[in-house]
Amino acid sequence: MGSRSESAVTDARSASFAERLHERVLRLDTRVCLGIDPRPAAHPLTDPVRHANDPARIGRAVAAYAREVLDATHDLIACVKPQSAFFEALGIPGLIALAQVIADAKALGVPVILDAKRGDIGSTAEAYAAAYLADGVFAADALTVNPYLGLDTLEPFLAAAEAGGRGLFVLVKTSNPGSGDLQDVTGDDGRRLHERLADALAARASALQPDPHGYGPLGAVVGATYPHELAAARARLPASVLLVPGYGAQGGTAQDVVGAFDARGLGAVVNASRSLFYPGRGEGIQEAARAAAAAMRDDLNAALAARDG
Amino acid sequence: MGSRSESAVTDARSASFAERLHERVLRLDTRVCLGIDPRPAAHPLTDPVRHANDPARIGRAVAAYAREVLDATHDLIACVKPQSAFFEALGIPGLIALAQVIADAKALGVPVILDAKRGDIGSTAEAYAAAYLADGVFAADALTVNPYLGLDTLEPFLAAAEAGGRGLFVLVKTSNPGSGDLQDVTGDDGRRLHERLADALAARASALQPDPHGYGPLGAVVGATYPHELAAARARLPASVLLVPGYGAQGGTAQDVVGAFDARGLGAVVNASRSLFYPGRGEGIQEAARAAAAAMRDDLNAALAARDG
Repeated sequence: MGSRSESAVTDARSASFAERLHERVLRLDTRVCLGIDPRPAAHPLTDPVRHANDPARIGRAVAAYAREVLDATHDLIACVKPQSAFFEALGIPGLIALAQVIADAKALGVPVILDAKRGDIGSTAEAYAAAYLADGVFAADALTVNPYLGLDTLEPFLAAAEAGGRGLFVLVKTSNPGSGDLQDVTGDDGRRLHERLADALAARASALQPDPHGYGPLGAVVGATYPHELAAARARLPASVLLVPGYGAQGGTAQDVVGAFDARGLGAVVNASRSLFYPGRGEGIQEAARAAAAAMRDDLNAALAARDG
Repeated sequence: MGSRSESAVTDARSASFAERLHERVLRLDTRVCLGIDPRPAAHPLTDPVRHANDPARIGRAVAAYAREVLDATHDLIACVKPQSAFFEALGIPGLIALAQVIADAKALGVPVILDAKRGDIGSTAEAYAAAYLADGVFAADALTVNPYLGLDTLEPFLAAAEAGGRGLFVLVKTSNPGSGDLQDVTGDDGRRLHERLADALAARASALQPDPHGYGPLGAVVGATYPHELAAARARLPASVLLVPGYGAQGGTAQDVVGAFDARGLGAVVNASRSLFYPGRGEGIQEAARAAAAAMRDDLNAALAARDG
């Protein structure tokens, strides 16, 4: 009960998501987000034919494999992003595996961004916030959310994020080819929908407590496959950490994503899933995962140095 | 292996979601969707203080209570809509309860619309479709989906729906006060975003196999709290069943929702959650639930008769 341990506890609780994330970005000099998208068919530790009728075994194999990759890469990554869909597809054992992955990442000190793209109204949004931004087995450090239902539907998530030092990442401009169908619709004021949304988010973010680097709990998702939008979003959203999917398998390069970072190299993390989580088959997964994460870290840092150098 | 049982199996498999739903609407003369939003704090069978640290017990109590309400109301309702958020908020036991509720509804022959508002890109959308529109413990008859990521992201869901005789309900115009923030943005062609989306969905729906009444697997969500938009959506989406939330606790009346139905009284179901699922406390829950469902059924049918009479 000494004052030192008390203040350590206070610090851990009072540090916001953005602050905890940036502490790792600066200390480890990495901007890599490890995407965990377990696909049993691609799984080195699972025989999909032999285990097809044993969901519990598949769930355990997924959790064990994710732990191997996390153990091998945790000092090379800024954060981890489990994709909820792939766990949900495995049924109850998949969700038990998700809870295990979240617990394992926390034990290693790696911030968890749960990619669940939730969104709903009023008390239903509160229920999602209780599931993912409070204290349950699925509690993460940050959550991706979908804004289509309106800005009022983000408030329950924001309230939970502010209360618990967590973060949100609102979908703004996604990485898929059809993302423009709604997101790029030009309004009668000349702004495209995702630009209008970004402006509204920036206005809301300006009223929230920033970390020492100026970033608050209201982040945004902008795909690596749209480099111009990424740089524009950086300018429109000065207090928002950007979560950038689409590097690697989807075609985004380090050059494409440098615009997501501020002049200090902060304010963004870049996600890769397949290339980091399934870097090879058979023996040597940990070495392969470590090499892939280090290569991505260095690729991003070199592109940033070239931009600023 | 007689031809009669074989053909019964074939019929059950080949009937689409819209066909199965309309068969019940016509046979039972009900357009009620029972919303299941379990809130432990409101739960008559759970003592939230005593059970706060026993999630497994809360999960079992929720599933048992939902079974009581389903048993009492199944012949008064067209379908049931579990809200995934409230189950997710209860952790693993909550998801086990969700699987139980889905199984119980199926056993009673009640089509299940899982309200999970999922949406993601490419293989991630495929994973969600595998979770909710295939054969796992969370497999439903239909799923609500969020279109913000683009029309290409609906295709994996549509493929699963077409393959398995399931349905989708795409969020078009939601019932909350802030739904206009994005959904009502007027584009440079003069259409609001949700109108533009509805037109795109109608074009896609016209290429899909309709049921005998003209409705295919691509439905839409339009809130009861926007009656004008509801009638307009009925006209814009001639092949889409409309799922109409917002009746009752959110303020929508039978008069507000009649515009969702076609001239035959088909093409829509109206959801109520709190008023049907928590109609009272203590003893007599089944009687109260039955009375509430019958009253809503009659309220909708009377408003339809008044419109058409």
